[in-house]
Amino acid sequence: MENKGEASPSIISASPTSSPPPPPSPRMVLSPCAACKILRRRCGENCVLAPYFPPTEPAKFTIAHRVFGASNIIKLLQELPESQRADAVNSMVYEAGARIRDPVYGCAGAIYHLQRQVSELQAQLAKAQVEIGY
Amino acid sequence: MENKGEASPSIISASPTSSPPPPPSPRMVLSPCAACKILRRRCGENCVLAPYFPPTEPAKFTIAHRVFGASNIIKLLQELPESQRADAVNSMVYEAGARIRDPVYGCAGAIYHLQRQVSELQAQLAKAQVEIGY
Repeated sequence: MENKGEASPSIISASPTSSPPPPPSPRMVLSPCAACKILRRRCGENCVLAPYFPPTEPAKFTIAHRVFGASNIIKLLQELPESQRADAVNSMVYEAGARIRDPVYGCAGAIYHLQRQVSELQAQLAKAQVEIGY
Repeated sequence: MENKGEASPSIISASPTSSPPPPPSPRMVLSPCAACKILRRRCGENCVLAPYFPPTEPAKFTIAHRVFGASNIIKLLQELPESQRADAVNSMVYEAGARIRDPVYGCAGAIYHLQRQVSELQAQLAKAQVEIGY
C-alpha cells in the first residue's frame, strides 16, 4: 500500500478537523457548563452539574473538583432531590474552599474553634448571670 | 502495686488497654491496610495510607473514600509533611462522616449552627453585661 506523504495530524481531537474550522458560536446559551468545560466533556441537555456550575463561575467547580472529585460530586447530587442540590453544591464548595485554605483541618478546624468560642461564651454568660443574681 | 517500671510509651494507640500483646513493628506489614484491602491493591511498604488506615478500622477508610475518593486523599497526604498527616486524615474522616449524615449541608451545616449559637450567646452576654453595669 502506498504511504501518503501528506502530513497528517498526530493528535486528533474529538471532532476531526479536515474541513475548515467552524466559526465561533455566538449562542452563549449552548456553551458548556464550567464543570464540563474543565472536564473537557460534552455538556448535554441533561447535565446534572450545569445548573450549579455556570460557565461564568469556573472557580466554583475547580475548587469542589479538587477536593471531592467530579464523580463524587455527581454521585452525591444524583442521590438528592433537585430542590436540595443547589444547597449541597454550595456547602461542598464552601467545604472544599476551607480544605484548600487549611489542608490539615479544613472545616473541622473551623468547627473546633467555634466550639471553643461557644464554651467560653457560655462560661462568661454563666458568670455574668451569677453576678446579676439569676 | 506498681504495674510498670519500663520506659513509658511515647506513642499511645487509639485503644490503650492494659494487656494487649505488643503490636508488631510498623515495618512488618502483616496484612494490607484497610485502604488497600478495600481498593483491592497491593499494600507496599511505602503505602502512604497504611499508617492512618489500619486493617482494624475499615470504616474509617470507607467513609473518607466515599466522600473524597482515594486519589484525593492520597494527593492531599502527599502534599503534607508526615507530622500533619494523621490530623489531616482525622479531619477528613470527621468531615466525610458529617457529609454522610447530612448530605446536603455536611460540616457547613454544623458551622452555620455554631455561628448562630455564638451570635446568640454574644447577644445574651452583652445584655447581661449591661445589667451588671459594665
